[in-house]
Amino acid sequence: MPVVIVEMWEGRTTEQKAKLIKSITKAFSEIGVDAQHVSIIIHDIQQANWGMSGKQASKLTR
Amino acid sequence: MPVVIVEMWEGRTTEQKAKLIKSITKAFSEIGVDAQHVSIIIHDIQQANWGMSGKQASKLTR
Amino acid sequence: MPVVIVEMWEGRTTEQKAKLIKSITKAFSEIGVDAQHVSIIIHDIQQANWGMSGKQASKLTR
Amino acid sequence: MPVVIVEMWEGRTTEQKAKLIKSITKAFSEIGVDAQHVSIIIHDIQQANWGMSGKQASKLTR
Amino acid sequence: MPVVIVEMWEGRTTEQKAKLIKSITKAFSEIGVDAQHVSIIIHDIQQANWGMSGKQASKLTR
Amino acid sequence: MPVVIVEMWEGRTTEQKAKLIKSITKAFSEIGVDAQHVSIIIHDIQQANWGMSGKQASKLTR
Repeated sequence: MPVVIVEMWEGRTTEQKAKLIKSITKAFSEIGVDAQHVSIIIHDIQQANWGMSGKQASKLTR
Repeated sequence: MPVVIVEMWEGRTTEQKAKLIKSITKAFSEIGVDAQHVSIIIHDIQQANWGMSGKQASKLTR
Repeated sequence: MPVVIVEMWEGRTTEQKAKLIKSITKAFSEIGVDAQHVSIIIHDIQQANWGMSGKQASKLTR
Repeated sequence: MPVVIVEMWEGRTTEQKAKLIKSITKAFSEIGVDAQHVSIIIHDIQQANWGMSGKQASKLTR
Repeated sequence: MPVVIVEMWEGRTTEQKAKLIKSITKAFSEIGVDAQHVSIIIHDIQQANWGMSGKQASKLTR
Repeated sequence: MPVVIVEMWEGRTTEQKAKLIKSITKAFSEIGVDAQHVSIIIHDIQQANWGMSGKQASKLTR
């Protein structure tokens, strides 16, 4: 029955999201939760909406 | 003072959202919460961002 | 498939929560969502952890 | 290590978001949390997706 | 930088949580996210606070 | 109307929470939001429920 909410930067491909959903679901299977009871919701966040170290991620030099 | 966050698939009409907001607020009134203290926030989620049974909802056969 | 997260002050009875869950689920049925696809998660929040008008709810005169 | 999720109406400028991120991070510094451990995530919500007093914010007279 | 929020029934052991954290982090590594950038937050929810099919999970016959 | 959800380790005093609520509310005032429209909800998370770098925060050497 778990619900997983993922907050991450936008820009991931559909394939990466598919892979992530598959692996997170498997993570729950490993502790005994049936795959059909796992819901995963991904929030794509633009970097101007993400703050780190007091600044927008869109403005950090990386 | 309750805050309600709704995660659901995108695609609902404005009328459906209006109806949902009205009914959820009423659900709180029935247990004694004044309507003006209820905030409801709807997150429209695309099906590629929603995982069920280890797969993206956009790829499930229904 | 909707997931509803409710943030509210602790102190509601089990009966009030049962009623709330029933009514919120019905709110979704009214816009065509099958009851068995609605998950509702209630977070009981103590008033010292709830800020309103810049103050803890536990310290507001009501 | 705190994570802060902000739900607010869409329409804020990048400058307002930058200012908000800076000030919220400072709020944590004041209670002893190092700025680099604070993550802030802003969800821009359209007013049709925000319910207040049982109505969509987009339909309220203000 | 992803933040993962897990809503699940209370009752999991520390070992199960450790395993879950390890596996979910690995799920992100597989799509190129460095493990030290993944934060996972688990909310333990009592079954009286979890609604399914219009009823509290604590009252469902399983 | 903003709603702010703070996920942080349990253990902060009531005074620290009061200060945090005051300062975060002020952060919104600075961008033109009236203090009485800001709601802040703090989730106290035990370190065994917080994952960082693939491990429970309760098990990290600091």
